[in-house]
Amino acid sequence: MPARHRGVPANNEDLHGSVPENSSVALLLIDVINDMEFEGAEALVEQAIPMAHRIAELKRRARKAGIPAIYVNDNFGRWQSDFRRVVEHCLEDGVRGEEIARILRPDDDDYFVLKPKHSAFYATTLDTLLTYLGTRTVILTGVAGNICILFSANDAYMRDLNLFVPADCVVSNTVDENDHALDQMRKVLKADITESTELSLDRLLEWSAVHPRSSRG
Amino acid sequence: MPARHRGVPANNEDLHGSVPENSSVALLLIDVINDMEFEGAEALVEQAIPMAHRIAELKRRARKAGIPAIYVNDNFGRWQSDFRRVVEHCLEDGVRGEEIARILRPDDDDYFVLKPKHSAFYATTLDTLLTYLGTRTVILTGVAGNICILFSANDAYMRDLNLFVPADCVVSNTVDENDHALDQMRKVLKADITESTELSLDRLLEWSAVHPRSSRG
Amino acid sequence: MPARHRGVPANNEDLHGSVPENSSVALLLIDVINDMEFEGAEALVEQAIPMAHRIAELKRRARKAGIPAIYVNDNFGRWQSDFRRVVEHCLEDGVRGEEIARILRPDDDDYFVLKPKHSAFYATTLDTLLTYLGTRTVILTGVAGNICILFSANDAYMRDLNLFVPADCVVSNTVDENDHALDQMRKVLKADITESTELSLDRLLEWSAVHPRSSRG
Amino acid sequence: MPARHRGVPANNEDLHGSVPENSSVALLLIDVINDMEFEGAEALVEQAIPMAHRIAELKRRARKAGIPAIYVNDNFGRWQSDFRRVVEHCLEDGVRGEEIARILRPDDDDYFVLKPKHSAFYATTLDTLLTYLGTRTVILTGVAGNICILFSANDAYMRDLNLFVPADCVVSNTVDENDHALDQMRKVLKADITESTELSLDRLLEWSAVHPRSSRG
Repeated sequence: MPARHRGVPANNEDLHGSVPENSSVALLLIDVINDMEFEGAEALVEQAIPMAHRIAELKRRARKAGIPAIYVNDNFGRWQSDFRRVVEHCLEDGVRGEEIARILRPDDDDYFVLKPKHSAFYATTLDTLLTYLGTRTVILTGVAGNICILFSANDAYMRDLNLFVPADCVVSNTVDENDHALDQMRKVLKADITESTELSLDRLLEWSAVHPRSSRG
Repeated sequence: MPARHRGVPANNEDLHGSVPENSSVALLLIDVINDMEFEGAEALVEQAIPMAHRIAELKRRARKAGIPAIYVNDNFGRWQSDFRRVVEHCLEDGVRGEEIARILRPDDDDYFVLKPKHSAFYATTLDTLLTYLGTRTVILTGVAGNICILFSANDAYMRDLNLFVPADCVVSNTVDENDHALDQMRKVLKADITESTELSLDRLLEWSAVHPRSSRG
Repeated sequence: MPARHRGVPANNEDLHGSVPENSSVALLLIDVINDMEFEGAEALVEQAIPMAHRIAELKRRARKAGIPAIYVNDNFGRWQSDFRRVVEHCLEDGVRGEEIARILRPDDDDYFVLKPKHSAFYATTLDTLLTYLGTRTVILTGVAGNICILFSANDAYMRDLNLFVPADCVVSNTVDENDHALDQMRKVLKADITESTELSLDRLLEWSAVHPRSSRG
Repeated sequence: MPARHRGVPANNEDLHGSVPENSSVALLLIDVINDMEFEGAEALVEQAIPMAHRIAELKRRARKAGIPAIYVNDNFGRWQSDFRRVVEHCLEDGVRGEEIARILRPDDDDYFVLKPKHSAFYATTLDTLLTYLGTRTVILTGVAGNICILFSANDAYMRDLNLFVPADCVVSNTVDENDHALDQMRKVLKADITESTELSLDRLLEWSAVHPRSSRG
C-alpha cells in the first residue's frame, strides 16, 4: 500500500483492491453524453433517443449480470473540464442532447474515460482499464456508428478483443452510413451485431470465459 | 463546428477554438494532489509543503507569463472518479495531504490529465494536449522525484521535449534519492535543473521559441 | 555524436544527419510485398498487378519530386524475419505475389517499417519516422483498401495528417468493398482520392507547405 | 489463413502458427549489436566484452530451458536499414563493436525488434510480441545500464512485467552509473538483480508460471 501512494501507482495486487469488478465482458457507451448543439443534429437526435432507451435497458441487464459500464466520451476540446461537468452541461443547459443524457445518466460506480480523438483507445486510459478488469470482450454502443464506433471497433480488433456491436444500439447520421459501418464491422472485424433484445448476456459471459483475448496470460 | 460534434472530435482549426492558449512552454504539476495517507508519508509531507509553496509561486509567475499549468495526477485506481473529486477528497476529508492540496488548489482554467501509471505520458492524453498547445518545452514539478517525475522526464525526453526540472520543486522520500534523480535527469536527459527562484520565465520563453521540439512541423 | 552511440539514440540534430530527407509529404506503400499465397487470392492478384504499375509510376514521380517512399509491411507473424527476407521470399519462391513484388521492388534508400497488425501506425515506428521527416501529408497506396489502408487512414486522420488516397492505387477483394472504403475515407477522413494520373505532386508539395499537421511546433 | 493474407494480419489462432514459441519468460538483449564507433567508447567496450560472454552463456542456458531471445536494437537513425544489415556492419567493417557482435551474433530463430529511441517499448512492436508469446517476466541485458536498460525497465514495470536484470549482464559508461541504475531498478522497480551465474532459469520459469503479468487474461 505505501508504495503506490508515494507517487507510485499500484502494481498488480494493489490496484485490484480499488477496482471493484473483474469482468471478462465490458459495456462501452461511446459519446452518448453530447450536447448535440450543431447544425443538422436534429436527424441524429431523433434516432438517438430510441437508441438511448435500448442502451439504458442493456445497461440495466448488464449491471444485473455483473458487467461493468464504461462511458468513453469526447472531451470536446475542453481539457480543463472533466466528465461530470460534461454531464452537467448536457443536463442543465437546455441543450438538444439533454433527453439522451437524462436517459443514459451515469451511475456513481460507472467507469469514465475521456478521449481526445475519435477512437476510444487513442491516447486514453481505456486499454489499461480493460487490462485491469481482465476484459476480453467489449460491447460497443453509442454514436456515431460510422465514425467513433467504427474507429473504436478497429482498435479493439487490433487489440484482439472480441467484439459485439448490437445493431440497435448505434446510430449514424444516415441509416445507410450506419448499415455500411455495421456491415464493415461484421465482415472485417468479425463483430457480432445481434440486436440488444436478442442478446443473452449470460450466454455471452459463458462464451467469453472460454474465448480469451488473444494469447495473453 | 458541425463535423466534430457528430461524434467527430475537432480537426486542427476547430480544436483551436476551445483551447484558449498556445504556448511553447507548459508547467506540469505531477501528483501534487495526493492524500498522503500511507505509512511513512510524514517525511515526504514535511518536504512537500515548502515545495508546494515554491511551485505555487512558480505557477503564479507562469500564469503572468502566459504559460499554462497542467495537473497530471494519479487516478489512484479509482476509475469512477475524476480529478475534481480527488481534489475534494484531499481538501475535505482531513487527510495528511490537505495542506499541499490547499496551497496548490487548481484554478478553473488549469488543465487536467489523469494518469493510471507512473509516467505522465503512459496511456494518457498528455501528448495530444501538448501537441495542440504547440508545446516544445516542459517544466516538471511535483512528487516523487525519483519515480513519477523521473519516469515522466524519460518519456518527455524520448518525445524530444526540452526539459526543465527546477531542483527546488521536486521532492522524493529521501534527499539522497532526490539528488540522484536530479543528477540522472541533468546528465542523461539534458534537463536544466536551475532552481525556480533563479529561473527567468521570459528568457525561457524566448529560448523555447528558437528551440523546436525535434523536427516537428 | 558520441551521446547517441552510447546506447542513446540520437536527439534532434543527430538523427537529422542520418535521415537523408526532410519532406512535408511521404508516399506510403502498404502490404504490397505479399506472397498472396492464400485461398481466393487470384481475384486480388489480378487487380493488384495493374495497381502495382500505377504505384510504381507514382513512386518514380515522387522520387523526382523529392518525396520519400516508405514501405509499411506486415511481418506476417514472422518476428525473426526482416523486410529484406520478406522481399526475397516474394521474389524467389515462385509465389503468386512475385510479379507485384518485382514491379514494386524497394530501392536501397527507401524506408521500411514492419507492422504487426492492420494499421501502419499500431505498434510501429511510423509515427516517429514521420515526425523526424517533418511529414504533414501522406499518400496511402496498396492493399487492402477496406482493411489495412482504411485502418491506417483512420490512424493518420487522428494524428492530424493530411490524407491523399489515389483511388487507382488501392485495391480490395471486391470493387464494391474498395468503393465503400474510398467513400468512407473521402467523406469521414476528408481524404483526397484523386487518381494518381491526375495528381500534381508539385501542387501537392506547395499545398502541404501551407497546411501544417495540426498545430505542431 | 486466407483472412490474414488479404492484408489482414492474423488474429489469435493464426499467429500462433507462425510464432514457434510460447514462453512466460523472455530474454532481452538490448543494443548489444553496436559499432561502438564513437569518442570515448573504449571504456565501454572493455567492460562490454566480458559482459557479452556472460550474456552468451545465459542465452545458451535460456535456449535449453525454452526461453526465447529477443534482440531489441537501436536502428541508429538508419530507417532504410534492417537488423541483419546492422549485424553485418558490425561484423564486417572492422568496427570497435565487432568482438561483442561476434560473441552475441544472433541465431536464425532469435526474435528482432528495431527501436527508434531509448526504451525497448517506445514506438516498437515489442509489447505486441510479448503479448503473443504470453510473456510475464523479462530478463533485461545489454547496454547502457543507466540509459536504454533503465528506460526499458521503467516501461516494462508500467506494463506489469516481472523484471530480472542480472547485475553482471549490463554495463554503463562508469561502474558508478551502473550501480546507481541497478539500485534504482531494484528499489523502485522491484527488479531482481541476481547475477546470471546465480540465476536458476528452471526456478525462474516455475516462479513465473505462478506470477501473472497483472490481471491480464
